[in-house]
Amino acid sequence: MSKIVIIGAGDFPKKEFPRYLVRCADRIICCDSALRTWLRVMVPIFGQERLPDAVVGDMDSLPKTLQRCFADRIVHISEQDDNDQTKAMRYAMEHYPDATEIHFIGATGKREDHTVGNMSLLMEYARLWGVSGLPSEGKPTVDMVTDYGTIFAVTDSCSLPVGEGRRISVFSPDNSLKIRSKGLVWPTDDVVFDNWWKATLNRASEDIVSLELSHKSLVLISLD
Amino acid sequence: MSKIVIIGAGDFPKKEFPRYLVRCADRIICCDSALRTWLRVMVPIFGQERLPDAVVGDMDSLPKTLQRCFADRIVHISEQDDNDQTKAMRYAMEHYPDATEIHFIGATGKREDHTVGNMSLLMEYARLWGVSGLPSEGKPTVDMVTDYGTIFAVTDSCSLPVGEGRRISVFSPDNSLKIRSKGLVWPTDDVVFDNWWKATLNRASEDIVSLELSHKSLVLISLD
Repeated sequence: MSKIVIIGAGDFPKKEFPRYLVRCADRIICCDSALRTWLRVMVPIFGQERLPDAVVGDMDSLPKTLQRCFADRIVHISEQDDNDQTKAMRYAMEHYPDATEIHFIGATGKREDHTVGNMSLLMEYARLWGVSGLPSEGKPTVDMVTDYGTIFAVTDSCSLPVGEGRRISVFSPDNSLKIRSKGLVWPTDDVVFDNWWKATLNRASEDIVSLELSHKSLVLISLD
Repeated sequence: MSKIVIIGAGDFPKKEFPRYLVRCADRIICCDSALRTWLRVMVPIFGQERLPDAVVGDMDSLPKTLQRCFADRIVHISEQDDNDQTKAMRYAMEHYPDATEIHFIGATGKREDHTVGNMSLLMEYARLWGVSGLPSEGKPTVDMVTDYGTIFAVTDSCSLPVGEGRRISVFSPDNSLKIRSKGLVWPTDDVVFDNWWKATLNRASEDIVSLELSHKSLVLISLD
């Protein structure tokens, strides 16, 4: 059983919850140049040095001096089909089979295309490894935690214990998907997912939000 | 002929280009609580007071005292089908028919679901009003300018004079769309747009990037 955080080069969070997750982590993986961010924040977070267990990426944005300095933990993966976040995720799945939680920290903010792309990769990981934001036998839960919320993928009908009043957005890249919902102020039953904003800015009207998908697909949930 | 900026309640940009666009604007519209941001930044930007021409929204997040203070320019639209950004856009389209440019400033950052939703609304405006990021007879160009880039919608085949080396991401919510491209390091010809990351993090290999769409659709371009 181990908890993993993967640090991206986006905005490193200022709030307590994501930083708490970092403090609780058994393994810390930095995506490429996020090592620089990490070296700046590790002492404020831990009160002492806490080097990452691995620095994964194509190393195109990490200065050579840092690469030499941390050569013992750098995992250089030069293929360009995946971005550094996905390389770090693959590394985690291959090297830490006992992982129970994987949290992406610093994966959003800064460039908007990175934010959108990185969020959508959570759905790709659900497709590739069957991992989602929900507990599942023998698989880690996977989410992205930022200063503004928690983002995770689901792939099938589910009940989410979000708490009444919680703000929730539902996304899907699948044009043919229909989602019947319970516990939302604006039910998603008639939503056609042909643009990203179609089921955003909703609110839980009950403690538990239930989503019933017309077929197994890719869905992204964002909670405030 | 007039230039319009619509100020959102996301991260107000620090960089010169978006602030320059604000300084050049003939009309300034604030989305609801973005008025608070505006009151903080207007003097640093203009060197003097420059009140917005309109403050548009459902006023659910603007303090009553500010609502009273600026009652002469508040446009209260209570319907909940559109968010404040779309209400401000509709106001601009209805009240400023001479608009030649509309720039969204502060529409991204903070909550990630807002960022994703607001970006995708550019495609909705292209559908509703035929406005895009490209010049078109009798219609304003519309884009979102942030500290990290420029985002705009296109709806048909086009040539984009982006400049060789420019980083570019292409998104579409349309699963059936195919885009043949020229001038990109990684051509999009074989991309199936069934997840958001599918044509992101590309780069222009020529000064002009040409996109040939299989059919008129909704496409979002992000340039760094």
